Amino acid sequence: MEGVEIQLLKSADLRGATLIDGFPSVGLVSSIVANYLIGALKLGQVGVMDSSFFPTVALVKGGVPLNPVRVYAGDTAGGKVAVFISEFQPPTDMIKEIAERVLEWGAEQGCSLIVSPEGLIVDGEEGPGDLITVYGIGSTPTARGILEDSGVPIFEEGVITGIAGVLLNEGRKKGFDVISLLAEAHPDYPDARAAARVIETVDRLILKMDLDTGPLYEEAGRIEEELKSIHRRAEVVKRPEAHPRPSMYR
Amino acid sequence: MEGVEIQLLKSADLRGATLIDGFPSVGLVSSIVANYLIGALKLGQVGVMDSSFFPTVALVKGGVPLNPVRVYAGDTAGGKVAVFISEFQPPTDMIKEIAERVLEWGAEQGCSLIVSPEGLIVDGEEGPGDLITVYGIGSTPTARGILEDSGVPIFEEGVITGIAGVLLNEGRKKGFDVISLLAEAHPDYPDARAAARVIETVDRLILKMDLDTGPLYEEAGRIEEELKSIHRRAEVVKRPEAHPRPSMYR
Amino acid sequence: MEGVEIQLLKSADLRGATLIDGFPSVGLVSSIVANYLIGALKLGQVGVMDSSFFPTVALVKGGVPLNPVRVYAGDTAGGKVAVFISEFQPPTDMIKEIAERVLEWGAEQGCSLIVSPEGLIVDGEEGPGDLITVYGIGSTPTARGILEDSGVPIFEEGVITGIAGVLLNEGRKKGFDVISLLAEAHPDYPDARAAARVIETVDRLILKMDLDTGPLYEEAGRIEEELKSIHRRAEVVKRPEAHPRPSMYR
Amino acid sequence: MEGVEIQLLKSADLRGATLIDGFPSVGLVSSIVANYLIGALKLGQVGVMDSSFFPTVALVKGGVPLNPVRVYAGDTAGGKVAVFISEFQPPTDMIKEIAERVLEWGAEQGCSLIVSPEGLIVDGEEGPGDLITVYGIGSTPTARGILEDSGVPIFEEGVITGIAGVLLNEGRKKGFDVISLLAEAHPDYPDARAAARVIETVDRLILKMDLDTGPLYEEAGRIEEELKSIHRRAEVVKRPEAHPRPSMYR
Amino acid sequence: MEGVEIQLLKSADLRGATLIDGFPSVGLVSSIVANYLIGALKLGQVGVMDSSFFPTVALVKGGVPLNPVRVYAGDTAGGKVAVFISEFQPPTDMIKEIAERVLEWGAEQGCSLIVSPEGLIVDGEEGPGDLITVYGIGSTPTARGILEDSGVPIFEEGVITGIAGVLLNEGRKKGFDVISLLAEAHPDYPDARAAARVIETVDRLILKMDLDTGPLYEEAGRIEEELKSIHRRAEVVKRPEAHPRPSMYR
Repeated sequence: MEGVEIQLLKSADLRGATLIDGFPSVGLVSSIVANYLIGALKLGQVGVMDSSFFPTVALVKGGVPLNPVRVYAGDTAGGKVAVFISEFQPPTDMIKEIAERVLEWGAEQGCSLIVSPEGLIVDGEEGPGDLITVYGIGSTPTARGILEDSGVPIFEEGVITGIAGVLLNEGRKKGFDVISLLAEAHPDYPDARAAARVIETVDRLILKMDLDTGPLYEEAGRIEEELKSIHRRAEVVKRPEAHPRPSMYR
Repeated sequence: MEGVEIQLLKSADLRGATLIDGFPSVGLVSSIVANYLIGALKLGQVGVMDSSFFPTVALVKGGVPLNPVRVYAGDTAGGKVAVFISEFQPPTDMIKEIAERVLEWGAEQGCSLIVSPEGLIVDGEEGPGDLITVYGIGSTPTARGILEDSGVPIFEEGVITGIAGVLLNEGRKKGFDVISLLAEAHPDYPDARAAARVIETVDRLILKMDLDTGPLYEEAGRIEEELKSIHRRAEVVKRPEAHPRPSMYR
Repeated sequence: MEGVEIQLLKSADLRGATLIDGFPSVGLVSSIVANYLIGALKLGQVGVMDSSFFPTVALVKGGVPLNPVRVYAGDTAGGKVAVFISEFQPPTDMIKEIAERVLEWGAEQGCSLIVSPEGLIVDGEEGPGDLITVYGIGSTPTARGILEDSGVPIFEEGVITGIAGVLLNEGRKKGFDVISLLAEAHPDYPDARAAARVIETVDRLILKMDLDTGPLYEEAGRIEEELKSIHRRAEVVKRPEAHPRPSMYR
Repeated sequence: MEGVEIQLLKSADLRGATLIDGFPSVGLVSSIVANYLIGALKLGQVGVMDSSFFPTVALVKGGVPLNPVRVYAGDTAGGKVAVFISEFQPPTDMIKEIAERVLEWGAEQGCSLIVSPEGLIVDGEEGPGDLITVYGIGSTPTARGILEDSGVPIFEEGVITGIAGVLLNEGRKKGFDVISLLAEAHPDYPDARAAARVIETVDRLILKMDLDTGPLYEEAGRIEEELKSIHRRAEVVKRPEAHPRPSMYR
Repeated sequence: MEGVEIQLLKSADLRGATLIDGFPSVGLVSSIVANYLIGALKLGQVGVMDSSFFPTVALVKGGVPLNPVRVYAGDTAGGKVAVFISEFQPPTDMIKEIAERVLEWGAEQGCSLIVSPEGLIVDGEEGPGDLITVYGIGSTPTARGILEDSGVPIFEEGVITGIAGVLLNEGRKKGFDVISLLAEAHPDYPDARAAARVIETVDRLILKMDLDTGPLYEEAGRIEEELKSIHRRAEVVKRPEAHPRPSMYR
């Protein structure tokens, strides 16, 4: 298993589905969005993504071991949804392969759209009451049309790096509809407010579930805490790597 | 021999056997367990695991040279048992390949269960009389059922790294029964008490030999000493690498 | 996609076209030339060059995501023109493969000539009114004939590195006409004046459009500013790499 | 020639021969043994071992260029003998491949036994009159039988690294008779006394030539001097690498 | 083009030719010899040697771009001659592949002899009037016979590194006649006097042109100056690598 592989644990019909990229981004916006949607939409795990270069770790939840990168899927009012979630930040030299594999796999499964949330670094200060703007960018005229129909302002000039950047380039090259949703986010901690704004936009664009944004912000905050807690727990468990195990020879 | 290979030195029928992973873990729990079982169950060496990246070393016992990673097997009251034992700590980038090869090979041989002992780092202080709890986690509903039937408490939330983590993930992906047994252990030295508790659990789950736990703790302590002694001896022998041999040209 | 690939986004007939190399060179002479020609000749994007080792980035212009290396093409009074433009400086160990791929692809498409602008480092001082000389060098007798017919002075002795050097060597080896145009340029910033002089020479050699050199210098200056600005913007966006994203485990 | 190859320069019938490993070991015991046997038994060069990773060097002796790793062979009272000799210390990551290739090649040629001399590090002080003990270890019951029949004490417990360790492991895995002869040696200089003791043992086990041990010690001392001298000469010749040659560009 | 390739630019009949290795050696002896012979014998370029690991550079002479490694050939009174010349010092890990390719290619072309000039480091002082001795070493009895017939003293004991060392080893292995001519040379600068002595020997052995040694020394000095000048020019041109070009993103 040299390359990046996606394997279904159970058969799933994803024709026409919207694929949501939850690989870690600035402010963990995409991770919070993905976690929220999996919970709110009660999505079930349908597959894993793996590679010989992914970390050798099982995340345990409710007594069940989980791969660090997983695919969840389910139905919503707005149609089928599949979500990629990753518990680790891929190293730079794997980003291209991961993003290309996500798009290829989405195309193979007959998905119709990929949505990639991403954080935009904010430099200036802003008051707590200011509303964060969510910008969109599409890989194709169709994707740009979806954004315009929903009144999402277009990100006109700039540079998008990482998984979102590659998904947009590949989408343009292959004529696959990819939308990246960009929210201003703090790069130094998981930014639940930015993620909540992206979730509202995803709801408006695709889910059509008219999610109640009040609890949404609370829920986003809860996920932010949980991610911090997983992080802490991982730190504790990781410590064996720090004090080297009593080695035998070599 | 680029990859990791397992070769049988003598034919062995391992259909239905329980495979026990003895690659070094936190507190060398798995190594002590594996060494104890090989001795107590009088298992014979049936094979070796090798790779061009394994150390160039022969361990000599009783005048016989041994590969650093070996497979032992034999019969017990509770059925057939096979044990992997490794005299060296695999480098991080080989862990995935080793664990995958163990599971593939176990499946090829018709083994029915893999048990992977692992140490859980303890942070707080505990009195010498406190009993160590052994937690279990299973890759499949069947594996979890075995744990529940034996009253082993389930490890509900957390992160498992290394060989055990990969075995659990692969077991889940391929529907192969894998159980990891986790005992709180000191990461800084071979922890015989933690290992003894795991051996009791392995006995209860699989061996059904009702091992006398008194001598067990003594025996575990003896193995702990032996491992420390091998370690020291290896250090002495390793020194030639330290003062470089009188080199000729180049 | 291990190697360097060129993919057409729309069909284009490039038989007989002149291919212009816009990969970054000393003083960004080639980048300014390529940007200017794309604008002035209203060339449209016809393809992308990509590799798994290229940066994971989408440049956004007018709401459209763009690969970092692109091919533009169109018609001019002097015949068809295709231009390679690259938003990043290829690492040294990719230069040979990129240049060879450009030449192979040009030959496959039936292009008749490759023009590679390059800056020559200047050491001494020169007054602002001094005219920069543009030297030429050709890979074949035909290419050298083109230069002589247009009165471009020949670069007689020296060393040419990078993409231009490889294009000349490969052109000589394969009998493909390659011309490198060398203008004295400041290595420390984008040198619009040197680029303007090269554009005049390209016009004289190939385009035959008798471009008005007055606005040309202004336009070159504008592109110089834009390139600096993209650079600054890229710096800002790149910062997330600087303060590491809140990582989860590993 | 990516891998390690052995090539015969002249045809040689090595069926039933004893193969002696002369790759550098602790105290250069194996190198001295190999050099001595080649001289004393008047063996002729029959082949070379080479690899693209071996040093780019020709050793010149008597006006003839020699590869750094060579095979010599000839007849003795005790049967055919072939000797590997290496003028350089293989890097750690080549040891497995070299040892495996030696054993494979020995099997292909129909050799019946491999003997690998190795030095054992001594820590304590010893008087000049103390006799060095030579221990033996065999890969198979047959090999162990040969040692016992000749009264060579068995090396019961410990660790053997390098070429000798791999030869023993491979011999055990493949059922090929390998004997390692271990003599206490000083790791910091070529140890002629230890080598002389090994030569006596090789004579007793295989050659049956009843070599006169008096001149043997003198001869071993002479070889020790010669090896030191080659070393010095190599140092002088190697110096061009130290002061870099007047480089041209690049 | 992963490996090292030699490509003919024009057809050339090299059956029976003597191949002269001009890759840089100690004191650039081989480079000066090769440059001198190309000029004095009016040899024409017939091919190039290239590899993806060679420098990305075109050397320009008389307005013509040249690969850094080239093959020249022509006729002399003593028969056909072909010369390899290299403008750069190959990195250590390419020397084996280059030398093997030179010998293979020479054999494919039907060449009958390879001559490889090399410098021998001198340590002591010598007066300006002392005559430098040229030693020879041959890969085969035939090659050694050629040396003896011409009265070239044999290099009896020592170590030869680099291209010459590999050519000798390969020549011995494959029965191809290779002669290395060794002249004492200063390692720190191009040594024209040593080269002139080698040229005299090459003339005596092969060319039979009875070259006038007076102008030879002058000519050798001129080439020494030219090589230094190319070196300086290369340094100037190389500087763009030193102050990094204004990079865009990444």
